[in-house]
Amino acid sequence: MDGQSTERSQRLSRAAAQRLSLYLRCVSGWPTDGEKVSSGRIAEAVGVSDAQVRRDLAALGHLGQRGVGYDAQELATAIRAALGIDRPWRAVLVGVGNLGRALLKYQGFRAQGFEIVGLFDSDTSKVGQVVEGLPVEAVSTLAERVGALRAELGVLTVPADTAQAVAESLATAGIRGILNFAPVVLKLPRRVRLVTVDLAIQLEQLAFQVQHGDTANRSTDEE
Amino acid sequence: MDGQSTERSQRLSRAAAQRLSLYLRCVSGWPTDGEKVSSGRIAEAVGVSDAQVRRDLAALGHLGQRGVGYDAQELATAIRAALGIDRPWRAVLVGVGNLGRALLKYQGFRAQGFEIVGLFDSDTSKVGQVVEGLPVEAVSTLAERVGALRAELGVLTVPADTAQAVAESLATAGIRGILNFAPVVLKLPRRVRLVTVDLAIQLEQLAFQVQHGDTANRSTDEE
Repeated sequence: MDGQSTERSQRLSRAAAQRLSLYLRCVSGWPTDGEKVSSGRIAEAVGVSDAQVRRDLAALGHLGQRGVGYDAQELATAIRAALGIDRPWRAVLVGVGNLGRALLKYQGFRAQGFEIVGLFDSDTSKVGQVVEGLPVEAVSTLAERVGALRAELGVLTVPADTAQAVAESLATAGIRGILNFAPVVLKLPRRVRLVTVDLAIQLEQLAFQVQHGDTANRSTDEE
Repeated sequence: MDGQSTERSQRLSRAAAQRLSLYLRCVSGWPTDGEKVSSGRIAEAVGVSDAQVRRDLAALGHLGQRGVGYDAQELATAIRAALGIDRPWRAVLVGVGNLGRALLKYQGFRAQGFEIVGLFDSDTSKVGQVVEGLPVEAVSTLAERVGALRAELGVLTVPADTAQAVAESLATAGIRGILNFAPVVLKLPRRVRLVTVDLAIQLEQLAFQVQHGDTANRSTDEE
Protein backbone atom coordinates (compact mmCIF):
# COMPACT_ATOMS: atom_id res chain seq x y z
CA MET A 1 0.00 0.00 0.00
CA ASP A 2 1.47 3.38 -0.90
CA GLY A 3 1.62 6.28 1.54
CA GLN A 4 -1.33 8.03 0.02
CA SER A 5 -3.74 5.11 0.32
CA THR A 6 -2.53 4.38 3.86
CA GLU A 7 -3.38 7.92 4.80
CA ARG A 8 -6.72 7.62 3.05
CA SER A 9 -7.74 4.39 4.77
CA GLN A 10 -6.72 5.74 8.17
CA ARG A 11 -9.55 8.19 7.82
CA LEU A 12 -12.10 5.37 7.62
CA SER A 13 -14.54 5.39 10.50
CA ARG A 14 -15.36 2.12 12.22
CA ALA A 15 -18.83 2.21 10.70
CA ALA A 16 -17.33 2.55 7.22
CA ALA A 17 -14.90 -0.29 7.95
CA GLN A 18 -17.85 -2.48 8.95
CA ARG A 19 -19.66 -1.71 5.71
CA LEU A 20 -16.48 -2.49 3.72
CA SER A 21 -16.36 -5.91 5.41
CA LEU A 22 -19.93 -6.53 4.25
CA TYR A 23 -19.18 -5.36 0.69
CA LEU A 24 -16.17 -7.68 0.65
CA ARG A 25 -18.32 -10.60 1.84
CA CYS A 26 -20.78 -9.99 -1.01
CA VAL A 27 -18.23 -9.46 -3.75
CA SER A 28 -16.19 -12.50 -2.67
CA GLY A 29 -19.27 -14.69 -2.90
CA TRP A 30 -20.17 -13.65 -6.42
CA PRO A 31 -18.96 -15.55 -9.49
CA THR A 32 -15.92 -13.92 -11.04
CA ASP A 33 -16.85 -14.18 -14.70
CA GLY A 34 -15.13 -10.90 -15.51
CA GLU A 35 -18.45 -9.06 -15.39
CA LYS A 36 -18.39 -5.64 -13.73
CA VAL A 37 -20.15 -5.17 -10.40
CA SER A 38 -22.40 -2.12 -9.95
CA SER A 39 -22.66 -0.14 -6.72
CA GLY A 40 -26.41 -0.72 -6.94
CA ARG A 41 -25.98 -4.48 -6.80
CA ILE A 42 -23.76 -4.23 -3.72
CA ALA A 43 -26.16 -1.74 -2.13
CA GLU A 44 -29.10 -4.07 -2.62
CA ALA A 45 -27.24 -7.11 -1.27
CA VAL A 46 -26.01 -5.32 1.86
CA GLY A 47 -29.09 -3.19 2.44
CA VAL A 48 -27.58 0.30 2.38
CA SER A 49 -28.14 3.06 -0.18
CA ASP A 50 -26.43 3.15 -3.54
CA ALA A 51 -25.02 6.58 -2.65
CA GLN A 52 -23.49 5.17 0.54
CA VAL A 53 -21.73 2.38 -1.37
CA ARG A 54 -20.39 4.84 -3.93
CA ARG A 55 -19.16 7.18 -1.18
CA ASP A 56 -17.45 4.34 0.71
CA LEU A 57 -15.76 2.98 -2.40
CA ALA A 58 -14.73 6.41 -3.63
CA ALA A 59 -12.77 6.77 -0.39
CA LEU A 60 -10.64 3.79 -1.46
CA GLY A 61 -9.33 5.59 -4.52
CA HIS A 62 -10.02 5.39 -8.22
CA LEU A 63 -11.75 2.09 -8.60
CA GLY A 64 -14.40 1.64 -11.28
CA GLN A 65 -15.69 3.74 -14.08
CA ARG A 66 -18.86 5.75 -14.17
CA GLY A 67 -21.61 3.69 -15.82
CA VAL A 68 -19.38 0.62 -16.12
CA GLY A 69 -19.02 -0.57 -12.55
CA TYR A 70 -16.24 -2.12 -10.54
CA ASP A 71 -14.00 -5.06 -11.31
CA ALA A 72 -14.86 -7.56 -8.55
CA GLN A 73 -11.29 -8.75 -8.09
CA GLU A 74 -9.83 -5.24 -7.99
CA LEU A 75 -12.54 -4.16 -5.57
CA ALA A 76 -11.86 -7.07 -3.18
CA THR A 77 -8.13 -6.30 -3.27
CA ALA A 78 -8.71 -2.61 -2.50
CA ILE A 79 -11.07 -3.39 0.39
CA ARG A 80 -8.63 -5.92 1.86
CA ALA A 81 -5.86 -3.34 1.70
CA ALA A 82 -8.02 -0.66 3.32
CA LEU A 83 -8.99 -3.00 6.16
CA GLY A 84 -5.43 -4.24 6.66
CA ILE A 85 -6.28 -7.85 5.82
CA ASP A 86 -4.10 -8.00 2.72
CA ARG A 87 -1.60 -9.91 4.85
CA PRO A 88 -1.99 -12.94 7.17
CA TRP A 89 -2.69 -12.42 10.88
CA ARG A 90 -1.56 -14.93 13.51
CA ALA A 91 -3.72 -15.41 16.60
CA VAL A 92 -3.74 -17.44 19.80
CA LEU A 93 -6.97 -18.77 21.30
CA VAL A 94 -7.37 -18.86 25.06
CA GLY A 95 -10.12 -21.04 26.57
CA VAL A 96 -10.53 -24.38 24.82
CA GLY A 97 -14.15 -25.02 25.84
CA ASN A 98 -17.16 -25.55 23.57
CA LEU A 99 -17.06 -22.12 21.99
CA GLY A 100 -13.28 -22.23 21.58
CA ARG A 101 -13.52 -25.61 19.84
CA ALA A 102 -16.33 -24.37 17.61
CA LEU A 103 -14.23 -21.37 16.57
CA LEU A 104 -11.25 -23.62 15.84
CA LYS A 105 -13.37 -25.63 13.41
CA TYR A 106 -14.84 -22.49 11.88
CA GLN A 107 -13.54 -22.24 8.32
CA GLY A 108 -14.25 -18.54 7.95
CA PHE A 109 -11.23 -17.34 9.91
CA ARG A 110 -8.64 -19.08 7.78
CA ALA A 111 -10.46 -18.10 4.59
CA GLN A 112 -9.99 -14.45 5.56
CA GLY A 113 -6.30 -14.85 6.39
CA PHE A 114 -6.55 -15.39 10.15
CA GLU A 115 -4.61 -18.35 11.49
CA ILE A 116 -4.91 -19.74 15.01
CA VAL A 117 -1.33 -20.74 15.84
CA GLY A 118 -1.60 -21.53 19.57
CA LEU A 119 -4.14 -22.81 22.11
CA PHE A 120 -4.09 -22.02 25.81
CA ASP A 121 -6.20 -23.02 28.81
CA SER A 122 -5.95 -22.52 32.56
CA ASP A 123 -7.35 -26.02 33.19
CA THR A 124 -4.25 -28.18 33.72
CA SER A 125 -6.19 -31.32 32.77
CA LYS A 126 -6.57 -29.90 29.24
CA VAL A 127 -2.90 -28.93 28.87
CA GLY A 128 -1.16 -31.33 26.50
CA GLN A 129 -4.37 -32.39 24.71
CA VAL A 130 -4.26 -31.92 20.95
CA VAL A 131 -7.27 -30.08 19.53
CA GLU A 132 -7.61 -29.53 15.77
CA GLY A 133 -3.92 -30.36 15.40
CA LEU A 134 -2.63 -27.94 18.05
CA PRO A 135 -1.46 -28.80 21.58
CA VAL A 136 -3.21 -27.00 24.46
CA GLU A 137 -0.63 -25.05 26.47
CA ALA A 138 -0.83 -23.53 29.96
CA VAL A 139 -2.06 -19.94 30.26
CA SER A 140 0.90 -19.32 32.58
CA THR A 141 3.25 -19.70 29.58
CA LEU A 142 1.54 -16.99 27.48
CA ALA A 143 4.21 -14.37 28.17
CA GLU A 144 6.96 -16.44 26.55
CA ARG A 145 4.88 -18.29 23.94
CA VAL A 146 3.11 -15.35 22.26
CA GLY A 147 6.40 -13.95 21.01
CA ALA A 148 7.70 -17.36 19.90
CA LEU A 149 4.46 -17.97 17.97
CA ARG A 150 4.64 -14.48 16.43
CA ALA A 151 0.97 -13.98 17.32
CA GLU A 152 -0.53 -10.49 17.17
CA LEU A 153 -4.17 -11.24 17.99
CA GLY A 154 -5.90 -13.15 20.78
CA VAL A 155 -9.29 -14.85 20.73
CA LEU A 156 -10.72 -14.98 24.24
CA THR A 157 -13.26 -17.73 24.95
CA VAL A 158 -12.87 -18.05 28.71
CA PRO A 159 -15.60 -17.66 31.37
CA ALA A 160 -16.58 -14.12 32.39
CA ASP A 161 -14.91 -14.32 35.80
CA THR A 162 -11.41 -14.97 34.43
CA ALA A 163 -11.61 -12.87 31.25
CA GLN A 164 -10.08 -9.68 32.68
CA ALA A 165 -7.04 -11.49 34.14
CA VAL A 166 -6.41 -13.48 30.94
CA ALA A 167 -6.84 -10.36 28.80
CA GLU A 168 -4.20 -8.61 30.92
CA SER A 169 -1.84 -11.58 30.42
CA LEU A 170 -2.37 -11.32 26.67
CA ALA A 171 -1.68 -7.58 26.76
CA THR A 172 1.50 -8.11 28.80
CA ALA A 173 2.60 -10.84 26.37
CA GLY A 174 2.48 -8.30 23.53
CA ILE A 175 -0.86 -9.15 21.90
CA ARG A 176 -2.11 -6.10 19.96
CA GLY A 177 -5.80 -6.94 19.62
CA ILE A 178 -8.31 -9.17 21.41
CA LEU A 179 -11.55 -10.68 20.08
CA ASN A 180 -13.45 -11.20 23.32
CA PHE A 181 -16.44 -13.55 23.66
CA ALA A 182 -16.75 -13.27 27.45
CA PRO A 183 -19.84 -11.25 28.45
CA VAL A 184 -17.88 -8.59 30.34
CA VAL A 185 -16.59 -5.12 29.58
CA LEU A 186 -12.79 -5.47 29.64
CA LYS A 187 -10.38 -2.70 30.65
CA LEU A 188 -7.15 -2.76 28.67
CA PRO A 189 -4.24 -0.43 27.89
CA ARG A 190 -5.11 1.83 24.95
CA ARG A 191 -2.45 0.19 22.77
CA VAL A 192 -4.45 -3.08 22.84
CA ARG A 193 -7.50 -3.02 20.55
CA LEU A 194 -10.63 -4.84 21.62
CA VAL A 195 -13.68 -6.19 19.81
CA THR A 196 -16.24 -7.87 22.05
CA VAL A 197 -18.82 -10.30 20.69
CA ASP A 198 -21.36 -10.59 23.48
CA LEU A 199 -23.80 -13.19 22.21
CA ALA A 200 -26.49 -12.37 24.78
CA ILE A 201 -26.32 -8.71 23.71
CA GLN A 202 -26.87 -9.76 20.10
CA LEU A 203 -29.99 -11.68 21.17
CA GLU A 204 -31.15 -8.70 23.25
CA GLN A 205 -30.76 -6.45 20.22
CA LEU A 206 -32.77 -8.91 18.13
CA ALA A 207 -35.53 -9.02 20.75
CA PHE A 208 -35.52 -5.21 20.82
CA GLN A 209 -35.96 -5.04 17.05
CA VAL A 210 -38.75 -7.66 17.06
CA GLN A 211 -40.50 -5.89 19.93
CA HIS A 212 -40.36 -2.48 18.33
CA GLY A 213 -40.72 -3.42 14.68
CA ASP A 214 -40.01 -0.82 12.08
CA THR A 215 -39.85 2.09 14.50
CA ALA A 216 -36.28 1.16 15.51
CA ASN A 217 -34.24 3.70 13.65
CA ARG A 218 -31.23 2.23 11.87
CA SER A 219 -29.00 5.11 12.86
CA THR A 220 -25.76 3.15 12.92
CA ASP A 221 -26.09 1.86 9.40
CA GLU A 222 -25.58 4.99 7.37
CA GLU A 223 -23.50 8.07 7.85
CA MET B 1 -45.04 -1.50 30.28
CA ASP B 2 -47.50 1.40 30.08
CA GLY B 3 -48.37 3.18 26.86
CA GLN B 4 -46.17 6.14 27.60
CA SER B 5 -42.98 4.16 28.16
CA THR B 6 -43.69 2.00 25.12
CA GLU B 7 -43.87 5.11 23.02
CA ARG B 8 -40.72 6.44 24.61
CA SER B 9 -38.67 3.28 24.03
CA GLN B 10 -39.82 3.01 20.43
CA ARG B 11 -37.86 6.15 19.77
CA LEU B 12 -34.61 4.46 20.82
CA SER B 13 -32.12 4.14 18.00
CA ARG B 14 -30.31 0.85 17.53
CA ALA B 15 -27.09 2.50 18.71
CA ALA B 16 -28.82 3.61 21.92
CA ALA B 17 -30.28 0.13 22.39
CA GLN B 18 -26.78 -1.33 22.10
CA ARG B 19 -25.45 1.04 24.72
CA LEU B 20 -28.37 0.16 27.03
CA SER B 21 -27.41 -3.53 26.69
CA LEU B 22 -23.89 -2.63 27.82
CA TYR B 23 -25.13 -0.52 30.76
CA LEU B 24 -27.35 -3.44 31.78
CA ARG B 25 -24.39 -5.85 31.61
CA CYS B 26 -22.38 -3.57 33.93
CA VAL B 27 -25.12 -2.83 36.41
CA SER B 28 -26.14 -6.51 36.61
CA GLY B 29 -22.57 -7.48 37.48
CA TRP B 30 -22.21 -5.03 40.33
CA PRO B 31 -23.01 -5.97 43.93
CA THR B 32 -26.47 -4.81 44.95
CA ASP B 33 -25.71 -3.46 48.39
CA GLY B 34 -28.34 -0.76 48.06
CA GLU B 35 -25.68 1.78 47.09
CA LYS B 36 -26.61 4.20 44.31
CA VAL B 37 -24.89 3.92 40.96
CA SER B 38 -23.57 7.10 39.31
CA SER B 39 -23.71 7.79 35.57
CA GLY B 40 -19.96 8.43 35.77
CA ARG B 41 -19.29 4.91 37.05
CA ILE B 42 -21.32 3.38 34.20
CA ALA B 43 -19.65 5.70 31.69
CA GLU B 44 -16.20 4.64 32.84
CA ALA B 45 -17.04 0.94 32.78
CA VAL B 46 -18.55 1.04 29.29
CA GLY B 47 -16.19 3.61 27.80
CA VAL B 48 -18.62 6.29 26.69
CA SER B 49 -19.02 9.83 28.02
CA ASP B 50 -20.86 10.64 31.20
CA ALA B 51 -23.15 12.95 29.22
CA GLN B 52 -24.03 10.11 26.84
CA VAL B 53 -25.02 7.82 29.74
CA ARG B 54 -27.16 10.55 31.30
CA ARG B 55 -28.84 11.27 27.96
CA ASP B 56 -29.56 7.58 27.32
CA LEU B 57 -30.95 7.01 30.80
CA ALA B 58 -32.99 10.21 30.77
CA ALA B 59 -34.78 8.79 27.71
CA LEU B 60 -36.04 5.94 29.91
CA GLY B 61 -37.96 8.29 32.19
CA HIS B 62 -37.44 9.61 35.67
CA LEU B 63 -34.88 7.31 37.13
CA GLY B 64 -32.34 8.62 39.59
CA GLN B 65 -31.91 11.87 41.39
CA ARG B 66 -29.43 14.60 40.59
CA GLY B 67 -26.32 14.16 42.73
CA VAL B 68 -27.59 10.90 44.23
CA GLY B 69 -27.40 8.45 41.33
CA TYR B 70 -29.49 5.55 40.18
CA ASP B 71 -30.85 2.60 42.08
CA ALA B 72 -29.15 -0.37 40.37
CA GLN B 73 -32.20 -2.63 40.58
CA GLU B 74 -34.59 0.03 39.28
CA LEU B 75 -32.18 0.90 36.48
CA ALA B 76 -31.87 -2.74 35.37
CA THR B 77 -35.66 -3.10 35.36
CA ALA B 78 -36.12 0.06 33.29
CA ILE B 79 -33.46 -0.99 30.75
CA ARG B 80 -34.99 -4.47 30.41
CA ALA B 81 -38.40 -2.92 29.79
CA ALA B 82 -37.01 -0.50 27.19
CA LEU B 83 -35.24 -3.32 25.34
CA GLY B 84 -38.28 -5.63 25.52
CA ILE B 85 -36.49 -8.28 27.55
CA ASP B 86 -38.69 -7.92 30.61
CA ARG B 87 -40.40 -11.11 29.44
CA PRO B 88 -39.05 -14.52 28.34
CA TRP B 89 -38.31 -15.20 24.67
CA ARG B 90 -38.54 -18.70 23.18
CA ALA B 91 -36.17 -19.63 20.38
CA VAL B 92 -35.39 -22.58 18.12
CA LEU B 93 -31.84 -23.37 17.03
CA VAL B 94 -31.21 -24.69 13.53
CA GLY B 95 -27.87 -26.37 12.78
CA VAL B 96 -26.62 -28.62 15.58
CA GLY B 97 -22.92 -28.50 14.68
CA ASN B 98 -20.02 -27.27 16.82
CA LEU B 99 -21.19 -23.70 17.06
CA GLY B 100 -24.80 -24.76 17.69
CA ARG B 101 -23.69 -27.04 20.51
CA ALA B 102 -21.48 -24.32 21.99
CA LEU B 103 -24.40 -21.88 21.98
CA LEU B 104 -26.66 -24.48 23.63
CA LYS B 105 -24.19 -24.78 26.51
CA TYR B 106 -23.77 -21.02 26.72
CA GLN B 107 -25.26 -19.86 30.01
CA GLY B 108 -25.67 -16.25 28.98
CA PHE B 109 -28.79 -16.77 26.89
CA ARG B 110 -30.90 -18.30 29.64
CA ALA B 111 -29.62 -15.75 32.15
CA GLN B 112 -31.05 -12.98 29.97
CA GLY B 113 -34.43 -14.70 29.53
CA PHE B 114 -33.81 -16.47 26.21
CA GLU B 115 -34.77 -20.14 26.13
CA ILE B 116 -33.87 -22.55 23.34
CA VAL B 117 -36.97 -24.76 23.12
CA GLY B 118 -36.28 -26.73 19.93
CA LEU B 119 -33.34 -28.06 17.88
CA PHE B 120 -33.41 -28.71 14.15
CA ASP B 121 -30.94 -30.06 11.61
CA SER B 122 -31.13 -31.04 7.95
CA ASP B 123 -28.74 -33.98 8.55
CA THR B 124 -31.07 -36.97 9.01
CA SER B 125 -28.36 -38.86 10.92
CA LYS B 126 -28.60 -36.23 13.66
CA VAL B 127 -32.41 -36.28 13.86
CA GLY B 128 -33.51 -38.07 17.02
CA GLN B 129 -30.24 -37.44 18.89
CA VAL B 130 -30.69 -35.69 22.24
CA VAL B 131 -28.40 -32.67 22.74
CA GLU B 132 -28.46 -30.74 26.01
CA GLY B 133 -31.76 -32.38 26.87
CA LEU B 134 -33.53 -31.57 23.58
CA PRO B 135 -34.22 -33.95 20.68
CA VAL B 136 -32.90 -32.89 17.27
CA GLU B 137 -35.82 -32.62 14.81
CA ALA B 138 -35.86 -32.48 11.01
CA VAL B 139 -35.71 -29.04 9.38
CA SER B 140 -38.58 -30.17 7.15
CA THR B 141 -40.88 -30.11 10.21
CA LEU B 142 -40.14 -26.46 11.10
CA ALA B 143 -43.40 -25.15 9.63
CA GLU B 144 -45.53 -27.20 12.04
CA ARG B 145 -43.17 -27.29 15.04
CA VAL B 146 -42.41 -23.57 15.44
CA GLY B 147 -46.03 -22.84 16.28
CA ALA B 148 -46.35 -25.82 18.61
CA LEU B 149 -43.19 -24.75 20.45
CA ARG B 150 -44.45 -21.14 20.65
CA ALA B 151 -41.02 -19.97 19.44
CA GLU B 152 -40.58 -16.38 18.24
CA LEU B 153 -36.85 -16.29 17.55
CA GLY B 154 -34.50 -18.50 15.54
CA VAL B 155 -30.76 -19.02 16.02
CA LEU B 156 -29.18 -20.00 12.71
CA THR B 157 -25.92 -21.96 12.92
CA VAL B 158 -25.98 -23.72 9.55
CA PRO B 159 -23.34 -23.54 6.79
CA ALA B 160 -23.36 -20.50 4.51
CA ASP B 161 -24.71 -22.37 1.50
CA THR B 162 -27.95 -23.46 3.21
CA ALA B 163 -28.54 -20.40 5.39
CA GLN B 164 -30.84 -18.51 2.99
CA ALA B 165 -33.15 -21.52 2.46
CA VAL B 166 -33.36 -22.32 6.18
CA ALA B 167 -33.95 -18.65 7.02
CA GLU B 168 -36.86 -18.62 4.57
CA SER B 169 -38.29 -21.76 6.23
CA LEU B 170 -38.06 -20.02 9.61
CA ALA B 171 -39.79 -16.93 8.20
CA THR B 172 -42.57 -19.05 6.67
CA ALA B 173 -42.96 -20.90 9.95
CA GLY B 174 -43.75 -17.60 11.71
CA ILE B 175 -40.41 -16.80 13.34
CA ARG B 176 -40.17 -13.04 13.99
CA GLY B 177 -36.42 -12.60 14.40
CA ILE B 178 -33.29 -14.49 13.40
CA LEU B 179 -29.83 -14.44 15.00
CA ASN B 180 -27.69 -15.51 12.07
CA PHE B 181 -24.15 -16.87 12.45
CA ALA B 182 -23.72 -17.89 8.79
CA PRO B 183 -21.28 -15.58 6.97
CA VAL B 184 -23.82 -14.47 4.37
CA VAL B 185 -26.10 -11.47 3.90
CA LEU B 186 -29.63 -12.92 4.17
CA LYS B 187 -32.66 -11.49 2.36
CA LEU B 188 -35.84 -11.77 4.41
CA PRO B 189 -39.33 -10.25 4.43
CA ARG B 190 -39.31 -6.94 6.32
CA ARG B 191 -41.51 -8.38 9.09
CA VAL B 192 -38.65 -10.72 10.09
CA ARG B 193 -35.87 -8.98 12.03
CA LEU B 194 -32.30 -10.06 11.51
CA VAL B 195 -29.10 -9.74 13.52
CA THR B 196 -26.05 -11.31 11.90
CA VAL B 197 -22.96 -12.23 13.91
CA ASP B 198 -20.29 -12.77 11.29
CA LEU B 199 -17.26 -13.92 13.26
CA ALA B 200 -14.80 -13.34 10.43
CA ILE B 201 -16.08 -9.77 10.11
CA GLN B 202 -15.44 -9.23 13.82
CA LEU B 203 -11.85 -10.40 13.35
CA GLU B 204 -11.49 -8.18 10.28
CA GLN B 205 -12.66 -5.20 12.31
CA LEU B 206 -10.15 -6.05 15.02
CA ALA B 207 -7.34 -6.30 12.46
CA PHE B 208 -8.44 -2.95 11.03
CA GLN B 209 -8.26 -1.30 14.45
CA VAL B 210 -4.85 -2.84 15.22
CA GLN B 211 -3.53 -1.81 11.82
CA HIS B 212 -4.74 1.77 12.07
CA GLY B 213 -4.32 2.33 15.80
CA ASP B 214 -5.90 5.37 17.31
CA THR B 215 -6.76 7.00 14.03
CA ALA B 216 -9.84 4.79 13.64
CA ASN B 217 -12.64 7.13 14.58
CA ARG B 218 -15.15 5.61 16.94
CA SER B 219 -18.06 7.20 15.13
CA THR B 220 -20.61 4.49 15.95
CA ASP B 221 -20.12 4.72 19.68
CA GLU B 222 -21.59 8.10 20.46
CA GLU B 223 -24.43 10.05 19.03
